[in-house]
Amino acid sequence: MPNEPPLPAAGHDSGLVSGLGPGLDPGLDSSAESDSDSLRALFRPRSVAVVGASREIGERIFRYLRDRGFPGPVYPVSASPGPVHGEEPLPSLGDLPSPADLVFVAAPARDAADAVRAADDLGCGACVVVSSGFAESGPEGEALQERIEAIARDTDMRVVGPNCMGVMNPRLGLFGTSMSALDEIELPAGNVAVISQSGAFGTHAALLLRDRGHDLSLWCTTGNECDVDVADGIACAARDEDTEVIVAYLEGCRDLEKLEAALAVAAETRKPIVVLKTGRSAAGAAAARAHTAADAGDDTSFSEMFERCGVHRARTIEELIDVAGACAADAFPNGRRAGLLTISGGVGVVMTDAAVRAGLEVAPMPVPVQSEIKALLPFASARNPIDCTAQVFDDWSLFDHLLDAVVRRGGYDSIVLFLATVGADPAMMEPLMSRLEKVRAAHPDRVMALSLIIDGERRSRLERAGFLVFEDPTRAVNTVAALSHIGDHLFRRRPGPARAGEK
Amino acid sequence: MPNEPPLPAAGHDSGLVSGLGPGLDPGLDSSAESDSDSLRALFRPRSVAVVGASREIGERIFRYLRDRGFPGPVYPVSASPGPVHGEEPLPSLGDLPSPADLVFVAAPARDAADAVRAADDLGCGACVVVSSGFAESGPEGEALQERIEAIARDTDMRVVGPNCMGVMNPRLGLFGTSMSALDEIELPAGNVAVISQSGAFGTHAALLLRDRGHDLSLWCTTGNECDVDVADGIACAARDEDTEVIVAYLEGCRDLEKLEAALAVAAETRKPIVVLKTGRSAAGAAAARAHTAADAGDDTSFSEMFERCGVHRARTIEELIDVAGACAADAFPNGRRAGLLTISGGVGVVMTDAAVRAGLEVAPMPVPVQSEIKALLPFASARNPIDCTAQVFDDWSLFDHLLDAVVRRGGYDSIVLFLATVGADPAMMEPLMSRLEKVRAAHPDRVMALSLIIDGERRSRLERAGFLVFEDPTRAVNTVAALSHIGDHLFRRRPGPARAGEK
Repeated sequence: MPNEPPLPAAGHDSGLVSGLGPGLDPGLDSSAESDSDSLRALFRPRSVAVVGASREIGERIFRYLRDRGFPGPVYPVSASPGPVHGEEPLPSLGDLPSPADLVFVAAPARDAADAVRAADDLGCGACVVVSSGFAESGPEGEALQERIEAIARDTDMRVVGPNCMGVMNPRLGLFGTSMSALDEIELPAGNVAVISQSGAFGTHAALLLRDRGHDLSLWCTTGNECDVDVADGIACAARDEDTEVIVAYLEGCRDLEKLEAALAVAAETRKPIVVLKTGRSAAGAAAARAHTAADAGDDTSFSEMFERCGVHRARTIEELIDVAGACAADAFPNGRRAGLLTISGGVGVVMTDAAVRAGLEVAPMPVPVQSEIKALLPFASARNPIDCTAQVFDDWSLFDHLLDAVVRRGGYDSIVLFLATVGADPAMMEPLMSRLEKVRAAHPDRVMALSLIIDGERRSRLERAGFLVFEDPTRAVNTVAALSHIGDHLFRRRPGPARAGEK
Repeated sequence: MPNEPPLPAAGHDSGLVSGLGPGLDPGLDSSAESDSDSLRALFRPRSVAVVGASREIGERIFRYLRDRGFPGPVYPVSASPGPVHGEEPLPSLGDLPSPADLVFVAAPARDAADAVRAADDLGCGACVVVSSGFAESGPEGEALQERIEAIARDTDMRVVGPNCMGVMNPRLGLFGTSMSALDEIELPAGNVAVISQSGAFGTHAALLLRDRGHDLSLWCTTGNECDVDVADGIACAARDEDTEVIVAYLEGCRDLEKLEAALAVAAETRKPIVVLKTGRSAAGAAAARAHTAADAGDDTSFSEMFERCGVHRARTIEELIDVAGACAADAFPNGRRAGLLTISGGVGVVMTDAAVRAGLEVAPMPVPVQSEIKALLPFASARNPIDCTAQVFDDWSLFDHLLDAVVRRGGYDSIVLFLATVGADPAMMEPLMSRLEKVRAAHPDRVMALSLIIDGERRSRLERAGFLVFEDPTRAVNTVAALSHIGDHLFRRRPGPARAGEK
C-alpha cells in the first residue's frame, strides 16, 4: 500500500474542495452531489495536519498518518515543545507551509473550537475533531460543542465530530484514527464502507469484517455530529467508486429527510446498505442519549424509511456483519424462491421455519423431479426442504444427481445446503468440495449458501468458489433472505446495471 | 475412558431392567420413575448385540461399540456369512450365550420387526432400531412400523426408533450410533444430555457443544418414536446423576401430558432444559411431517408448556448451544438486574435494547456510585449501561475502580462486559485478564459474561475462570437473560438445592 500512487486528490481552489470523483453518475441530485463533493477532503485529502499532536490521541493519529502510506505531507501541530515521533511540531496551524486539506483536532475540548476556527480561516477543506468532552459530558461540554457548531454553520468547511474516532481510506493510506487496534493489525483496502456514529462500534465492525475476509473502502465515525452526520457519510460512500456495500450504525438522527436522501443516492448507485439503528427500547433510547446526546427518535419511522429505501435493518451486530459480508460477495438472488437441501430432516424444518419467517418462498420442487428423486432415494423428502439424508454420501452419484436436480431443475433463485458435520470429516469434504465447486461454477445466476461445521481454510476455499458459508443454518437462511430483499429493491424494481448473476 | 470401570449396570432379572439409579431423588413420582428405570437398559446395558452387523450401518455400530471402551460383551448378529471386523457373527439373536441388555437393529426395514420380536422373546431389556424405511417413507413403511409398535405395546421391553441414529453414554464407553463423525473425533464424557428426534440434528448438536468445550452425559435419538420418545429421554436424563443440562430437539409430540410430566421431573431434579421445537410455520410443520411422520401440533400450546415448566425454548440452533453451554457452566443469576459495562457507548445501546427485549432489568447504578464514577471519568456514562470508554485502559486504576464499583456496589445479579476489540490486543489482554480473573473470583455469586473478539486459548482461560464468553454482545445478553429465566424457575420459585453462586 505505501507505494501505491495516491488517488485523484480533492481540488483545492480557494481551500474549498470540489470536483466530481471518477466514475460517479452525473445524473444524481445536485444538492446531495455538492454535499458529497465537499466531503471529499475527508477521504481524499492531499495533505493533513494534526492539532494536539503531543497529546496521546493526537500522537497516535499522527503516527498512523505518517507511517501507514499516506502519500502527502503530514504535519504535527502542538503548542507544547518537544518532538512528536522525532519531528518538531509546528506551533500553530498558521505555521503550515500551505493550508492542509484535512485537519485532525486532538486538542483539549476547551481549545478545539479555536483550532477549528483557525483551520477555517486558513481555508482548510475539512476538520475531524477527535477530542471528547462535549455534549456527551454535560452542560459545559455542550457549550463548547455549540461553539464548533456555530463555526460549521457559517462555512463550507465540513466538520466531523467532536467525540469521534476519525476517518480512514485504506486505499489511500489514510489512517486518520485513534483506533489503537491498528498497532496490532493491518487494514487492507476493500469494498465495504463503514459509517458509524460510535467510534468503538466502527472499530469493532471493521475488525469483525476483517475476520470474515472483508475489507474497508472508507471508514468514518461521526460522534456527536455537530456537522457531518451518518447521512453525509452514506451519501459520500454511495458515490465512492471503491465502495460496493455500506454498513451504517446510527443511534439517532436529527434530519430524517437528509438521511432518506442519502439512502436514495445509494439506491441510485446500487449500493446495498446494512444498518444497525439502536434505541428501540425506551432504556436503549436513554442510553443513546447519554452516549452521543442524540435523540433516538421514533423507531417506527426509521423502520419504515429503511423498508422504503431497501435498506436492511439488522437486529444484531452478528446479523449486520453476516449480511454486509454477503453483500460484499456481490450476488443477489433473482427472486424469493429458495430451495432448502439438507442431510438432516430436522434441520430442514428449522430452515423452513426461518425461511418463511424471513419472507422467502419455500416452493415445492416440480412434481416430476420429486418423483425422480423418490425413485432414487426412497427415504428422501423430495418436496422442499429436500432431505437427502446422509445416505447420499454412500454413493456420490446420488449426491450429484440430487444436487443437479435441485439447482438446475428446482427453479430456485437461491439454494441453502445444510451439511451439518460433514465439513469436519476430511475424507468426505474433499470429494464434496470439488462437486460443490463444479455446481457453483455451472450456475452463476443462483445464490448458494452452505451451513456446516468447517475449518477456516476450507471455508475460504468455498467462499472463493462463490458460496456463502455459515455454521448456523438460520443465519444462512436469514442472510439469503436479506440478500433477496435487497436485490428486490436495488436490482428488480427499476432498470439499472446488471447484478452479479447477470453479468 | 476404555479402562474406566462400568457404571452400575441395569438389573437383569427376567430380562426386565429395574432398580433406581444412584443419587436419584426417592420422592419423585413413581410412574415416571418406572418408565425411567425401564430405560436404563438403553444407557447402562451390561451387554449389547447388533442385528444386521454385516450391513454398513450395523458394521459401524458394532465397531464403535466394540472398539470405544464398552466394558461388556458386544455380539455381532447377521444371517449373512463372513466375518464382521474379524469376528464371525452369530446367525441369530437366539444364538447369544445369554440375552443382551440392549439390542441394536440395523436389519432391512422388512426384517426389523422380526428382530424386535426375537429380542423380546429372549427377554432383552431394550431395542434400538436404527434402520430406516418406515413411516417416513410411505404406506409400506408405515405398515412395517406398525408391526414394531404392536410388539412394543405388548411388552415391557422398550423400543427406540425406528429411523434413528442410536444412543450413547460416553462415560460407559457406549457408542451405539451410526454417526460416522466418530471416525474422526472422540466424544469425551461430560454433563450435557442431548435428546433429539432427529439423528443428524443430534450429531450436529453434539459436535457444536464439543467445539465449545461441552461434552455429553447421554445422547439419544428417537427417530419415528414408535415407543420411546423425547419425553422418555428427558425423564431419563433428568434422573441421570451425570447429567446437569438437557438439550432437547422436538419436531412433534404425540403425548403432551407425558412431555409435561418429563419436564416436571427435570424441574424437580433441578436440571435446566433447553429445547428446540420446530414447525412454527405451516411450511415448517409440513416439513416435520415429511421427516418423521410427527405432527408438529399447536405451536402455542408448546410455548405455553415450556414457559410453565421453565424450559428455555431456543429459536435457533446457535441460541440452543449458547444457552445449553452457559447452563453447563452451572451459574444462574440471583435475579434479573443486569449491569451492562461497555467500552463502546454504541454497543451499550445495542445491549440495552437486547436486555430489555429479553426481560432483564437494566437498573441504574446507585446515585452515589454514579457521582463517584463521574468524578473519576467525566466522559463516562455512569447510569447503566456504564460506558467507561476506552480511556480506562490508559490508566488501569480507573478500570479497577470502575469494575469494582459495578460488580460490588451496583447491586446487579449479572454483569455483561463488552470489550470489543481489546481481546485482539495482547498488550492489553494480559493485564486485563488478571484483573478479570481477580474480580470473578471475588464475586462467585454474580454471573459475568464477556463480549469480545478473542482467540481460542484466551477464551478458554476466561471460561475456566468462570466467565461466559461471546463474540456478539446480543448473544451474551440473551444468554444471560435465559439463565436468569431458568434460574427463576429452577432455583427461586421453590425450596431446593442451592445453586452455583450459593454453594
